[in-house]
Amino acid sequence: MTSAILLISCDDKPGLVAQITTFIHKHNGNILDLHQHVDKQASVFFMRVAWDLTDFKLTREEITKQFQTIAWQHRMTWRLHFSDEPQRVAIFVSKHAHCLYDILARWQSGDFAMQIPLIISNHPDMQTAADAFGIPYHHLPMNKQNKAEQEKKQLALLEENDIDLVILARYMQILSADFVDHYANRIINVHHSFLPAFPGARPYQQAYDRGVKIFGATSHYVTAQLDQGPIIAQDVTHADHRDAVKDLIRKGRDLENTVLARAVYNHLQHRVLVHGNKTVVFD
Amino acid sequence: MTSAILLISCDDKPGLVAQITTFIHKHNGNILDLHQHVDKQASVFFMRVAWDLTDFKLTREEITKQFQTIAWQHRMTWRLHFSDEPQRVAIFVSKHAHCLYDILARWQSGDFAMQIPLIISNHPDMQTAADAFGIPYHHLPMNKQNKAEQEKKQLALLEENDIDLVILARYMQILSADFVDHYANRIINVHHSFLPAFPGARPYQQAYDRGVKIFGATSHYVTAQLDQGPIIAQDVTHADHRDAVKDLIRKGRDLENTVLARAVYNHLQHRVLVHGNKTVVFD
Amino acid sequence: MTSAILLISCDDKPGLVAQITTFIHKHNGNILDLHQHVDKQASVFFMRVAWDLTDFKLTREEITKQFQTIAWQHRMTWRLHFSDEPQRVAIFVSKHAHCLYDILARWQSGDFAMQIPLIISNHPDMQTAADAFGIPYHHLPMNKQNKAEQEKKQLALLEENDIDLVILARYMQILSADFVDHYANRIINVHHSFLPAFPGARPYQQAYDRGVKIFGATSHYVTAQLDQGPIIAQDVTHADHRDAVKDLIRKGRDLENTVLARAVYNHLQHRVLVHGNKTVVFD
Amino acid sequence: MTSAILLISCDDKPGLVAQITTFIHKHNGNILDLHQHVDKQASVFFMRVAWDLTDFKLTREEITKQFQTIAWQHRMTWRLHFSDEPQRVAIFVSKHAHCLYDILARWQSGDFAMQIPLIISNHPDMQTAADAFGIPYHHLPMNKQNKAEQEKKQLALLEENDIDLVILARYMQILSADFVDHYANRIINVHHSFLPAFPGARPYQQAYDRGVKIFGATSHYVTAQLDQGPIIAQDVTHADHRDAVKDLIRKGRDLENTVLARAVYNHLQHRVLVHGNKTVVFD
Repeated sequence: MTSAILLISCDDKPGLVAQITTFIHKHNGNILDLHQHVDKQASVFFMRVAWDLTDFKLTREEITKQFQTIAWQHRMTWRLHFSDEPQRVAIFVSKHAHCLYDILARWQSGDFAMQIPLIISNHPDMQTAADAFGIPYHHLPMNKQNKAEQEKKQLALLEENDIDLVILARYMQILSADFVDHYANRIINVHHSFLPAFPGARPYQQAYDRGVKIFGATSHYVTAQLDQGPIIAQDVTHADHRDAVKDLIRKGRDLENTVLARAVYNHLQHRVLVHGNKTVVFD
Repeated sequence: MTSAILLISCDDKPGLVAQITTFIHKHNGNILDLHQHVDKQASVFFMRVAWDLTDFKLTREEITKQFQTIAWQHRMTWRLHFSDEPQRVAIFVSKHAHCLYDILARWQSGDFAMQIPLIISNHPDMQTAADAFGIPYHHLPMNKQNKAEQEKKQLALLEENDIDLVILARYMQILSADFVDHYANRIINVHHSFLPAFPGARPYQQAYDRGVKIFGATSHYVTAQLDQGPIIAQDVTHADHRDAVKDLIRKGRDLENTVLARAVYNHLQHRVLVHGNKTVVFD
Repeated sequence: MTSAILLISCDDKPGLVAQITTFIHKHNGNILDLHQHVDKQASVFFMRVAWDLTDFKLTREEITKQFQTIAWQHRMTWRLHFSDEPQRVAIFVSKHAHCLYDILARWQSGDFAMQIPLIISNHPDMQTAADAFGIPYHHLPMNKQNKAEQEKKQLALLEENDIDLVILARYMQILSADFVDHYANRIINVHHSFLPAFPGARPYQQAYDRGVKIFGATSHYVTAQLDQGPIIAQDVTHADHRDAVKDLIRKGRDLENTVLARAVYNHLQHRVLVHGNKTVVFD
Repeated sequence: MTSAILLISCDDKPGLVAQITTFIHKHNGNILDLHQHVDKQASVFFMRVAWDLTDFKLTREEITKQFQTIAWQHRMTWRLHFSDEPQRVAIFVSKHAHCLYDILARWQSGDFAMQIPLIISNHPDMQTAADAFGIPYHHLPMNKQNKAEQEKKQLALLEENDIDLVILARYMQILSADFVDHYANRIINVHHSFLPAFPGARPYQQAYDRGVKIFGATSHYVTAQLDQGPIIAQDVTHADHRDAVKDLIRKGRDLENTVLARAVYNHLQHRVLVHGNKTVVFD
């Protein structure tokens, strides 16, 4: 069964749900899943609706065209996706293997509806992993001198491969503002702390030094401000005095894996809307 | 601002959301909150929709009358609530104080939209607590001989006081099937284990004897089968070898409080639908 | 059964456990509970040992005197407690009732081995609660002008009442450095965020504005630096886009209660040692 | 640095800790880590002590020989391990890949101090995974007729390879009582429910049918009674009405991985003692 997924946000007003669901029903669509949220403080309406395309009377092009009229009327920000068009994903990685392996294992098990045309790394270490899963691996070493040039190559690779989403699987380079602009709200990073605590370098060391009794991980869309982008998912686990930094690192890997996977899963299912610096996650 | 809350379940079919939301919009209602769920296995549609009554053109009686037509058409099971009509709640308690105090504190802080016309107990111990909060306390001692008779008195008190919901706040008596029938899906109990594990008596002792590494609490609607009713909320916490039964009891109180409170809160907000022996909780 | 509880920290070296446990055994003490921890980075040894006094050959004074010799030899920081000498606790509160009620309920249920000779508040609101539990209530209004003077009165009250521990149960005044000095590592506060994130005022609003997907509470010993003291316990719960600030406040109360209670419980059981700005909690 | 690890249990009596730690100190051992627990109900003493062997005066054989005297005196059950002698582990797997990959990734990252001389499976599917990590793979198909014979082959392989621990990484065959006897408390299984709830087949379906709001995983030592062995670790996550069985399966994989990994980690670190049908985990 193929479904259409519509994501909408606009100023709140009466009648939006009725109009949208009537549009779907009129053309013979059966709603499979509908989420709606009103941010009362900002008076903004958010909606995600998925419907069965089996008996739907409109073609994909006609949906876009006809819905455009409704969208204009309410000045909606909107996106339309189809469940049989998997996202094309590039994974960026450095030397840490765990998030990469975790994503590839979930992808192989069929959890993640995506294609992975390439893996990009500033180190050669993960070549073997890429090979094992049959994914082209691009080694683009980075240093202060060649950063702009290498990012240009990365962007070219992403464009050639029609990439929809970039996953930073513990990629230890800071992306330039220009790079980020090309993929606004389409780059997902995992930071190994419960942000806004411990941004930047060596968060486990920071957590250890402060003596916190919990520590965590955060997945977020990347913006030009380091570790400041819209948060998609977070989780923590307990620490105690027996945990040395190496224990935090060891236990933290599980958090990094699951928190990144949760963000990626929801993004791939078209369940995340960004508004300002916050996310609405219809999970 | 007063809102109307409509809870619906029926066989799934196309057009339900469109028809319901159009009904609300036609009469000038602004939807505040809408949840919808389709149980694909059973092909059952569930919905909760809340809308602002401020500019709504229909009176409360007219809503009921007019919605009846839609409901008949689709053989809906449905309920209509209004946010300014708080539920009337009776609390049943035995000797354990913590759940009672917890509920009363949440009620006093304004978290629980309810009135508490009476507390019923088979013991005199909680009289003082009831007095402190200014709530009439009815002491109805129970034994094997007088159970039927005392339940009759309880039912009479509930009827006199127009009770919508009964909360069993660690009430240590088993209600008869007849009693339960009078308040189907309107009696909430908390059992001190993660059901279906450890039903019946002394679940903390059972958990200790089995050597589990987690233990929990479960709130559920009461049915004629002990500890078998539809589950509303559950939670657990970790145990280890150092926890004696008394430690499980001590730590378990927090779980009992929060799990019961979560169920009561969602019930009072009209967020729980029962289907078969399961719940849909639109929280 | 009465037990002695010894808390020790000193530079790590071989033979410490052997010497201490031999001291206890020599005088006929049976060890009930022993925890030991070495901070390898700082090379500091921590220990908590509790033993049965039933057949112990030394009086309380003799224990102190004789152990002093061992302590001197290794330059130990140490404390000796007895399980039948409950701590004397003062609760400071402002207008929020929940932490106060929660502590009093746990105390009444017997969970907290303490006496509460007084409650101090800068507002009159909690007088009724204090009365209900039969505890003297001191209303000391605070403003910028009278702060120094009122703190003097507070300190006098604490001294008169032989107070061992001060609990700030959502007390909304910042204590002066001088006040804190009088009760170093004996004032426990609860802050309504997962520190070090969102220190200072209105943490729930800060959390809402940042769009975090978890939020939490932290209990810590109070130091002269606001919200910077040694952390004793922390916990979080999940948030999502539907949570307005008032929802965070409502859900946060449970966290504040349990996180403060966990810190107080461990302090009262003499399970917390402070080292630098961190705690060792032998729970 | 190499350490010795001593695990002890015996009837509780005064002086045990003093005698054991004095033995270590006398021969110039510095204690790195000491845990002790008394099961007051059963009056049983448990202890784990690890000490630095760098300046220790006794050889490994002498430790065993000399400690034997102490052990006899108190009728101790005891084991001695050395940190530089990694356990030899066999992994049993069927068709589910996730637990296998998870264990191999942790092993490769250096988290698990073990050697993996072989993987045994009743299916050919995981051969590629085994190859990728360079581990010999033994495919031994199982059916009702050949079970006894195939188990004989498995046992022979385990013996040849000097196996200390068997990990059942979602191995979907029930081991015979005879097989289990050969590796008492040395076979770790993961069951995909929070036992004792939902033992046996299809626990996710069982959880779905019951409508629980949490679901979990349990790692335990295998005994002759299916899913009844001593529990080592458990965890749960939340479910709601939107979770179909396939969602529980998907989300459950993370729990299975982490709960199994926690048990294996603690076993490999010699932190688990079994007593009756319960475990003491000194983590």
